Parts: sequence; C-alpha cells; structure tokens
Amino acid sequence: MLGNLIGPEIKELIAERNFSALRAAFADWSPADIAECITELPDGEQAVVFRLLPHAQSTDVFEYLDADAQQIVLKAMGHAEAARILNDMSADDRTALLEELPGAAVVQLIQLLSPEEKAIAQALLNYPEGSVGRLMTPAFISVREEWTIQETLDHIRTHGSEMETLNVIYVTDERGRLIDDIRIREVLIRPVSTRIAEFRDSNFVALRSTDAEGDALEVFRKYDRNTLPVIDSEEKLLGIVTVDDMLDVQEEEATEEIQKLGGVEALEEPYMDAPLLELVKKRAVWLVVLFLGEMLTATAMGFFEHELERAVMLALFIPLIISAGGNAGSQATSLLIRAMALGEVRLGDWWRVMRREIASGLCLGLILGLIGFSRVAIWGHFSTIYGPHYYLVGATVGCAVLGVVLWGTLAGSMLPMLLRRIGLDPATSSAPFVATLVDVTGLVIYFTAAVLLLRGTVL
Amino acid sequence: MLGNLIGPEIKELIAERNFSALRAAFADWSPADIAECITELPDGEQAVVFRLLPHAQSTDVFEYLDADAQQIVLKAMGHAEAARILNDMSADDRTALLEELPGAAVVQLIQLLSPEEKAIAQALLNYPEGSVGRLMTPAFISVREEWTIQETLDHIRTHGSEMETLNVIYVTDERGRLIDDIRIREVLIRPVSTRIAEFRDSNFVALRSTDAEGDALEVFRKYDRNTLPVIDSEEKLLGIVTVDDMLDVQEEEATEEIQKLGGVEALEEPYMDAPLLELVKKRAVWLVVLFLGEMLTATAMGFFEHELERAVMLALFIPLIISAGGNAGSQATSLLIRAMALGEVRLGDWWRVMRREIASGLCLGLILGLIGFSRVAIWGHFSTIYGPHYYLVGATVGCAVLGVVLWGTLAGSMLPMLLRRIGLDPATSSAPFVATLVDVTGLVIYFTAAVLLLRGTVL
Repeated sequence: MLGNLIGPEIKELIAERNFSALRAAFADWSPADIAECITELPDGEQAVVFRLLPHAQSTDVFEYLDADAQQIVLKAMGHAEAARILNDMSADDRTALLEELPGAAVVQLIQLLSPEEKAIAQALLNYPEGSVGRLMTPAFISVREEWTIQETLDHIRTHGSEMETLNVIYVTDERGRLIDDIRIREVLIRPVSTRIAEFRDSNFVALRSTDAEGDALEVFRKYDRNTLPVIDSEEKLLGIVTVDDMLDVQEEEATEEIQKLGGVEALEEPYMDAPLLELVKKRAVWLVVLFLGEMLTATAMGFFEHELERAVMLALFIPLIISAGGNAGSQATSLLIRAMALGEVRLGDWWRVMRREIASGLCLGLILGLIGFSRVAIWGHFSTIYGPHYYLVGATVGCAVLGVVLWGTLAGSMLPMLLRRIGLDPATSSAPFVATLVDVTGLVIYFTAAVLLLRGTVL
Repeated sequence: MLGNLIGPEIKELIAERNFSALRAAFADWSPADIAECITELPDGEQAVVFRLLPHAQSTDVFEYLDADAQQIVLKAMGHAEAARILNDMSADDRTALLEELPGAAVVQLIQLLSPEEKAIAQALLNYPEGSVGRLMTPAFISVREEWTIQETLDHIRTHGSEMETLNVIYVTDERGRLIDDIRIREVLIRPVSTRIAEFRDSNFVALRSTDAEGDALEVFRKYDRNTLPVIDSEEKLLGIVTVDDMLDVQEEEATEEIQKLGGVEALEEPYMDAPLLELVKKRAVWLVVLFLGEMLTATAMGFFEHELERAVMLALFIPLIISAGGNAGSQATSLLIRAMALGEVRLGDWWRVMRREIASGLCLGLILGLIGFSRVAIWGHFSTIYGPHYYLVGATVGCAVLGVVLWGTLAGSMLPMLLRRIGLDPATSSAPFVATLVDVTGLVIYFTAAVLLLRGTVL
C-alpha cells in the first residue's frame, strides 16, 4: 500500500540500469512516492530516472519533488518537455518553483508558458514574497446563486477536471465579487432542482491576496478550514489557498522561532543546503554582539578585583553562579516566547506573568541556593579549602544563587514582553542574549553578597 | 465579512444584558467567531451567553470553543442539553473533549450518549493517547467498486449530511476492507453511468489507528492530502483524519521542541493554565541537574587555584570565555536539532555536519578570538591593569576563545546526533545542557592556554 516499502528493490533496478523494469514498477506508485525516491537519488541520476516517467505521471511527480530536485530535472529537460510540465503544473506549485530561481531563469521559463498560463504566473509573482497571493491557485469553481444544483453539477463536470480541490465551491455576483462559499456536501445532499440561493447562508471567510502567510495560518486555524478563498481589495475572487500550504508556513515559522531562540538569524535554506559563508554570517553577528556585551563582565569584576585578591576562592564559584542565572533565564525566555507566539500570553498579562515568574524564580532559587550552600558547607567542613569561615562562604554562594536565579527568571520572562511592547519580535530575546544580560548583573549580585556577608571575616 | 470586526459592540450588548439583541447579532456570525467571542468572556459569563444560541448553532459553536470554555459551558448545562450536544458533536472533537476531563466525569457524560454514539465514543477512547485513533472520526462515505456514479451520488445524498468532509470517498470490499480512495472531483467530472471500477486506480495511502500522531503528520505532509483514511490491522476502514488536526499536532511538536531546547520539560497545558507547582517542577529537574553538573567548574578551577592566586586578573576573563563557548554551542545545537526534526540532517550525515561545523567553529572562533585579543592588548597598552606582559595575556584570552568556540560549536552540533544514535530524543541536548558541558571544558582550555603561554612571565 505504501509504495516506499519496496524502495530498496528500486535502488537495485537503478543501479543495474534496468529502466524498463523501473518504469513498470513506478506505474503502480503514487506520485509522492516516486518523487521521494527520485529526491533521494544522487544529483546525477535524478533527471535520468525522471525522464522514464510517462507524460501522464510526470507533472504530478514533478510537483512533489523538492526545490533542488525540480531545478536539476528542469535543467536537463528539453524546451518542449519543460513547457508541457510548466503549463500543466498547478499555479501555486509553479510560483513556489519560480521564486527559488534566479531572475534570468524565471524570465526564460515564463516564455515557455501559454499566453493564458503566462498571465497567471506573472500575476502571482507580482504579489510580495510571503503574501497569500504567492500561495494562491486560480483553479476554483465559482457559481451564481440563481443556478440550480443540476446546473452547478453540470458546470463542475465541464470545468472541474483542472481543480486542485472541489471540497468547496464559491458563489460570486455578476461582477465576480465573492458573496458566499458552499461546501460540496451542501450541494450533494440536496435535490438537484434546488437553487443555490435557497440554501446559501452568506456566512463565509476570505483572505486578501496581500495578507501575510502567517495571518492566513491564523485564519485557517481559527475556522478549521481546508480551503479558503482569496479576494482583492474590491472583493473580487482571485483564487484559493489550501491548508497543505499552511503546514509548510507553520513549519517555517517554528523553524525561524527555534533558530532565533538559539541566537542564530533565521536561515533561508535548509541547514545542509546553506552555503558555509551564510552559516557563519548568520551566527557571527549575534555572537559578536553577545561577546562585546559579555566584556562588561570583565569590567564589572574589575570593580571587585580587590576582593578577589583577598579571597581568590571566590573566583571558583563564578561559573556556577552565573550559569545558574543563565539557565533559569533561558527556561523562562523559551516558555514565554512560545506562549506569546501561540497567543496564550498577551501583553496585558504581564503582571500575572511577572507574579508567576517571581514565585517560580523564588522556588527555583531557594532549591538551587540550598544545594549551593550545602555543597560549600559540607566540603568546607571536611577540608580547609574554604578557610575557617566556610559557612559564611556557603551563605554567600547560596544567597547569590537565589538572587541570580530570581533575576534570571524575571529577566528571561519580561524581556520578550518588553520587546513586543516596543514593537520588536519577542524572539529577538534569544536564550544567549538573556544569559549574557544575566551574567553581567549576576556578577554584581554575587560580589555584593560577598562584600555584605564576608566583610570583616574573609574580606 | 469577518464577524469579529464588530466584537466591541457585542461586548457592550453583554455588559448591558441585552440578550435579545445579542441573539439577533449572533445569527449572522460564523460558529468560529461566536466561539472566539465566548472564549474571551470572563468564566462566569461564558455559559450565560452560550445558552442564548439556538439549537441549530449551539453544537457547531461548542466544537469551536477551547477546552476550558467547553468544560465551563458543559457544567452549566442541564442533562438534556448536554446529551443533545454530545450526541451531535463530531466524534473526533468529542474525544478531544473527553480526554481532557477526569475519569468520573467521562463515565457520567458517556451515559448521556445514545447507544450508537456511546459505542463510538468508547471505541475511540480505547486508542492510546497520542495515537491516530484518538483523532479519528467515523463519519465517512464508503462505496463499492461495482456502483455507478449515479448510485454513488444517491448514496451521498442520503448519508452525506453528517459527514465532516466529502472531498474524498472510499472504496471498500465486501468485508469492509479499504481498497481505494477517490477524490470527489473524479466522481463529479464523469458521466453518471460510469462505474467506480472503471476509473479507480488502487493507488491510495492510509494510516493505521495505532500510528503515532507525529507519523500521521509526516504522511499528510508527504502526500499533500486534506483527509486520510484510517484502517485497522486487518485493513478494515475505521474512520478518517482531517488535516486541520495536523496543524494542532505540528504546533504541539514545535512547542515541545522549543521548551526542551530551553531546558524545560514539555508542559502539558498552555503556560497560563499550568499550575505554578507544575511550572516549577518542570523546570527544577533540569535546573538542578545542570547546577550539579556546573559544580564541576569549581572542581576544575580548583586545580588551577595556584595559577589564579599568582594572577588574579585571569579570573576577570572567565565569564567572557566560557559564555562565548556556551553561545556558540547554543547556536549549533538549535540549528542541528531543528534540522534533524525536519529530516534535513540524518545520522548518516554526521561527517558532513562535523566538517561544516569545524569550519564554522574555526571562523567564528577566529573572529571572536581576535576581538578578545584586541580588547586586552589595547586596554593593556593604555593602562597597567594587565601588567607588562599584557600582549601575552591577550594572546591567552584570544587562544582560549578560539578553542572554546570551536569546541562549543562541535559539542553543540554532535551531541544531538549522538543522542539520536543511542536512541534518545536529540532535543534532550538543550542549549543550557550544551552550555554547561562547554563551561567545564572551557575552563580547562582557558587555564591550559594560560599555563602554556604565561609560564615564566606572568605565572
């Protein structure tokens, strides 16, 4: 049933160059399985195997190939073949292919299209990248409200074969403006003499061609739709967007969020395809900014050099203390950024969030502080490494950990909200950014605790 | 068009207790908009407003409410009303509601169902949580291949009104086994006398009821489907799953990934709904583990206490150096965990990844190392803080940063792959975990560099 169960055999056929057996094997496969098989081949063999496919299959398979494989296969094709496939492709998949290609190649390929398809392709490419227009396909069924179901079904029978989906059909007025959507179910369950106007409800949801992809995702999620119509500023129906594109949009957004949270500018390509230089650039910017910020730690500690000289052992706990704050901050920032992205937390909730995080930070700080105190006190009891006032040193470490964890939790949770408040992306407050912020202040907290608790004994 | 444009007016009507006007206003709204409006009301008013809805709307609206609002509204309902809504709900939405409730409430509510719906609800709840069975709805159209299109359309007209979607219909054999799926388009574009067997292609994809949700998501993505059939171990057709559920599955997976990456065990509820104690517990475990691990930094530095005493200024650069490694590691780990989750990087790619990361780590380390060297050298030139051998101190810092960044990048990228290799979730290697690992080794790198470069001068 799942074609790829026999994947290994296929690879043998390719290795043996047994193309006739391969063609026969592919005949029963679904286009998605063939495409997956071709995508996994070495670059040099992808076009060879693709050319084995009969015309009836090749466009479908082509649509399922990933962007790299599409380009490789396309380059190896003759003009006639490329023209056939580009004309047959669904318009949204074609836009996705063309937007990956360099401008010159796009111009060349668009020349291969029929006048009608050329107009469609150019119109779609005119929408800004990342807008609903780019995801749209103009293949939809639109009917008039005075039609009967029989007329509607006849219309579908004539025009339905090129449609990506027929789950929903659209009702437009005499000027092409969208006035309703009807699920095909509503049509199929009624007597064929019923007029559309008799049962339509004027209750519909539409996207605008200039809406951002992310906003479209929200609408799909809210209304649980599989397909949504797209209209222009005059409410004219332009095309439809299907929910499978939304899975891609949602995945891209999550990827961007995760990369930003890790302190990397979002990559434009998959990790393996990104050129090394880009990979370094996207990381270097933040890394340098954080490094420069972190230099303040040396400055901050400079103020306490005198104390450090008198009690070098204080240096031993620096990494322990500042990393506890960094980790607590990283946790808080991950939780809050995600909760804000999901709409679970809004700006107006800041006070509730702050109270929750102060309470959490206090609990976590007390737990870690107690562990830190015990570690120093027990160690100090059995050795001389921390001197005779080891319990005071332990108390210093414990208090510093408590303060730093509380501060890290608070900074990590409030920073994303602050960024959103001033109009920036909350995800800019990456975990490393919070950690750096907490490191500098954490040192001040630690040495202040030391001065207060150890003056007159150790210091 | 979008009902919520008039949201503020609705809130006024509620405040004024003008229920008849409210009911009239809701009449034109889509169920999703009404549900959103009710969800945003204070808990005490949700049930009041819900009860205004006419029967025809109330089940639809109920299905769009979030889990909390559903429970509040349900509690306020009489038995008859609850029975009507639970019987009318689509089976998958009902399962989602029941799995949120305590066992006793589920038993009570299931008693309200008709014998037929009770059997369905119990069967679905018998599938393990997180499996495809829990997402399934048994409302599908199945036909026999010997039927004509006319017979098929007649069948749909009789049975189609309860179906969630009619985009695809299913062909089963005499024992109820799934033998094909057919898009409604294929039915609608052919003459009504055509038999199903004449055009069906045996090419279909199905899920098993015991498959994990995440695997189902993969199948939906690969085959670009809006609906997939679900079969049991004997290939009997049990129900269908729709792609809108996959948006939820994908979002949950991304949330879990982000929380784990931030060093938090995945929350089971939205951030704002999670009890404080759970919020603390989910964070405390990792925070304590990392804190204990980080104690090794004090141990590692203990070995170099002698050097520290001779040159206290070495302590000034500790946070700078270890945080550079932690940040580089956090970047690498975020990139790799996401790339692995998306299937862009597989275990077999480890060598290619390692080469890329060594190259990236070297570049990044050189950039930061140079900045670090310059900072110390320039500062040291104009002040006496780093002593007469300031350029050697600068070189130590520069080399340590280079080494630590390279090591952080390598550890951050290889750890997720190593975890996957030994069968663990790569996301266990959270950014804080990598940072802790790099902190301990980073100190050893730093002090080793210091001993090598400064012996005989500063040390």
